[in-house]
Amino acid sequence: MKIKEFLNKKNNNKDVIVVQGLGFVGAVMSIVVANSSKKDYAVIGVDRKESIEIIDNINNGIFPIKSSDPKIDEYYQKSIKKGNFLATYDTSAYSYASVIIVDINLDVQKNSDSQGNLNSFNVDLNPFKNAIRTIGQNCMEDVLILVETTVPPGTCLKVVKPIIEEELIKRQLSVDKIKIGHSYERVMPGPEYINSIKNFYRVYSGIDENSALATEKFLKTIISTKEYPLTRLVNTNATEMAKVLENSYRAMNIAFAVEWSRYAEEAGVNLYEIVNAIRMRPTHSNLMYPGIGVGGYCLTKDPLLASWAKINHFSSDNNLEQSENGVKINDKMPHYAFDFMKKAFALESITNKKILLLGVSYRSDVGDTRYSPVEPFYLNCVASKAIVETHDPYVQYWEEINLKVSQDLDEKLDMSWDIIVFSAAHSEYKNPKVISKISKMSNVKVLDTLGILNEKDIVELNKNNKVKVLGRGDI
Amino acid sequence: MKIKEFLNKKNNNKDVIVVQGLGFVGAVMSIVVANSSKKDYAVIGVDRKESIEIIDNINNGIFPIKSSDPKIDEYYQKSIKKGNFLATYDTSAYSYASVIIVDINLDVQKNSDSQGNLNSFNVDLNPFKNAIRTIGQNCMEDVLILVETTVPPGTCLKVVKPIIEEELIKRQLSVDKIKIGHSYERVMPGPEYINSIKNFYRVYSGIDENSALATEKFLKTIISTKEYPLTRLVNTNATEMAKVLENSYRAMNIAFAVEWSRYAEEAGVNLYEIVNAIRMRPTHSNLMYPGIGVGGYCLTKDPLLASWAKINHFSSDNNLEQSENGVKINDKMPHYAFDFMKKAFALESITNKKILLLGVSYRSDVGDTRYSPVEPFYLNCVASKAIVETHDPYVQYWEEINLKVSQDLDEKLDMSWDIIVFSAAHSEYKNPKVISKISKMSNVKVLDTLGILNEKDIVELNKNNKVKVLGRGDI
Repeated sequence: MKIKEFLNKKNNNKDVIVVQGLGFVGAVMSIVVANSSKKDYAVIGVDRKESIEIIDNINNGIFPIKSSDPKIDEYYQKSIKKGNFLATYDTSAYSYASVIIVDINLDVQKNSDSQGNLNSFNVDLNPFKNAIRTIGQNCMEDVLILVETTVPPGTCLKVVKPIIEEELIKRQLSVDKIKIGHSYERVMPGPEYINSIKNFYRVYSGIDENSALATEKFLKTIISTKEYPLTRLVNTNATEMAKVLENSYRAMNIAFAVEWSRYAEEAGVNLYEIVNAIRMRPTHSNLMYPGIGVGGYCLTKDPLLASWAKINHFSSDNNLEQSENGVKINDKMPHYAFDFMKKAFALESITNKKILLLGVSYRSDVGDTRYSPVEPFYLNCVASKAIVETHDPYVQYWEEINLKVSQDLDEKLDMSWDIIVFSAAHSEYKNPKVISKISKMSNVKVLDTLGILNEKDIVELNKNNKVKVLGRGDI
Repeated sequence: MKIKEFLNKKNNNKDVIVVQGLGFVGAVMSIVVANSSKKDYAVIGVDRKESIEIIDNINNGIFPIKSSDPKIDEYYQKSIKKGNFLATYDTSAYSYASVIIVDINLDVQKNSDSQGNLNSFNVDLNPFKNAIRTIGQNCMEDVLILVETTVPPGTCLKVVKPIIEEELIKRQLSVDKIKIGHSYERVMPGPEYINSIKNFYRVYSGIDENSALATEKFLKTIISTKEYPLTRLVNTNATEMAKVLENSYRAMNIAFAVEWSRYAEEAGVNLYEIVNAIRMRPTHSNLMYPGIGVGGYCLTKDPLLASWAKINHFSSDNNLEQSENGVKINDKMPHYAFDFMKKAFALESITNKKILLLGVSYRSDVGDTRYSPVEPFYLNCVASKAIVETHDPYVQYWEEINLKVSQDLDEKLDMSWDIIVFSAAHSEYKNPKVISKISKMSNVKVLDTLGILNEKDIVELNKNNKVKVLGRGDI
């Protein structure tokens, strides 16, 4: 369907909202906007021509994101019924928009060695700049451009605004009416996917008063702002910084658990027990548990975006030491987990060992494999010539390494293994039947990288086998 | 009064509890034990002969710690009335004890340059070892030694136990009945001083089952364990680690605020506003505000104790990078605040400038100046030949630098100053009269190092003067 046809059909006189980028945020944001209970919008999702499969799927009844949140399908079906959501790569879509929401990626290029040591990194703004330029080449002069992408602080004022103005001037349009807002999402893929957009606190700002007001007005039609009031910050630098600060804090807190997890192993104590004891203090209630590492699109890069911008956008002499270190320590964690496996089971070599990885996504009960810590763990196993198989109830195909992943846990547990690794904390693995099956195997070594096993499980498994848990020096 | 006399007088047949160390923890712990509602104890506080002044004061009706908590005086007066609290340097006190609580200091020796850069550090265990030895030379063979001192993980098993056993053997006593427990306090000097001991969660452990049971039994007579249940950890390594982990976490979180505070100044944003916006997320509710730095006895050294023990007690190859960095970043903060003052007010030199520091203690509404961040700030001012005066409602004499501190705020605010620095967030400074007085001065520069001023104050002060706030790039 062409854009004009779409707009004439059921969407006559509706405000057109264009979402740029149909990834984990943009696709879901699109259906949330299409289902606003406060205003009837026509939503056009724009992605690059290379993403034609996603675009076609959306237009043909197949939503690109699998999720345990039933609301995803519900919202998508409703948008089909209403006929107010179209996907396209046609950039003329921007010319109809009263609001353009920027939900594209902005990546960090990491230069790391095979052990996960981050030697250097760079932020290439060009793909982002090009995407913004396409908006400027097509948009109306009074559009609201709402940037949701996590950007290096300073980007709206130092990058987005000049590009848009440049393009408007080329088109002989006024630069006085353009509105640029920034409001970061706090999307959590998983069972609360939709709620994490619709029913959660939002921080926003604009490059000027008009921009901030327009952003506020629009967000109020999308988000349950009565229950979750909006917070306005003074300028876009502030909201951009808030987003990367938030994620840097979390990344650093995870890195803290990483280094104490090693300590606990050396000192023969159970870090889980310690964390539980300390979490009773309200000031320490977000202390993290040990784990195989950090994955996902945000925590693995946002502190670096922040650090990069500090020097490149604000001419600072110093990087963000503590925040950058968070990323560095976390990046090494899967490699450490791999070494731990060999050491804990006293294995000189894992060549030809049959290893089953239970879970490949970066988060429990989510099918997202982007920057999953299981990836370096898997690659280390393969590099050591182990025979590795993988299972994940939420991942059929592991795109990052082009691997088919099994969904048949029973079948996998009927096979024989040298080592079974719990590498994601999916609910399916917590089923007593799983423990019971593994406990009946003989000579299998069980590595729990994220504390999925409880005390009873461990006793049960240790009858025939050997269990080791990252962050637990007591077993 | 002699110990025997004390024990014969009103304390016949009472269990004798000896508290070793009469500092910020030991002195208050003593009166809490003396006022147990569950058991009638005779309490003897033992300190070194050099602390004779403190000992004499306690025995003569003068409690050594000034506090805003009225319960301190109440508890102390009750113990006088009951006649069940004696202070002494006579180490024979240990021979009467059924429980000996170790509340002495264990210091870290920091080697830092004049800019606060921590070049190296060391932990000298000898004073601690000597104190433990005195116990071994005097105690009964079945005493419970309850270590509350923050120690490098591993200390109870690797240091305390061998020393006590060695001394018992020398005295031809059995080593089988000795009990050693570890339970760390979470004392907070300030208005909740007593509650922070009596009404708060406790973690405990013992070197064996008997030790843990005895520790539990004793703590139950001191702490409101119904409301704040005890948590038992598996061994003393675990509780020792829990304590330093807890404080390392806090120190690291403060260091995080430090580095983002500088960023906020560079980017022209208000970090307070950002922190407030982010703290709405339950996972981020303990995000710290900017400040002049970290002080007090714990956060400035505990991460280093942990890091030291990792290498020296558990033969690790690695220190605790993230936790050590926390201390390093925090140590530099007061120096940064000093540089900020010069830069923010565009002062080439502060020689002969008249500077008033409001607050010298390390914490709001507390008189504790140990490792106060105001100390390096003050010393930097003096080294630059400024004329510095200090005020603090809770500190009459600043022991660390041998300085008389004024308590007369009105008098100080009637004098003329070039710069007034809010260096502690005492309630007295939040009085509108203070702002009103300062706002009437002309040509005074006001530096707020911890966000004590609200927006209204800032507008008011900026009428005649110039205000700068650490962590706020927006003014």
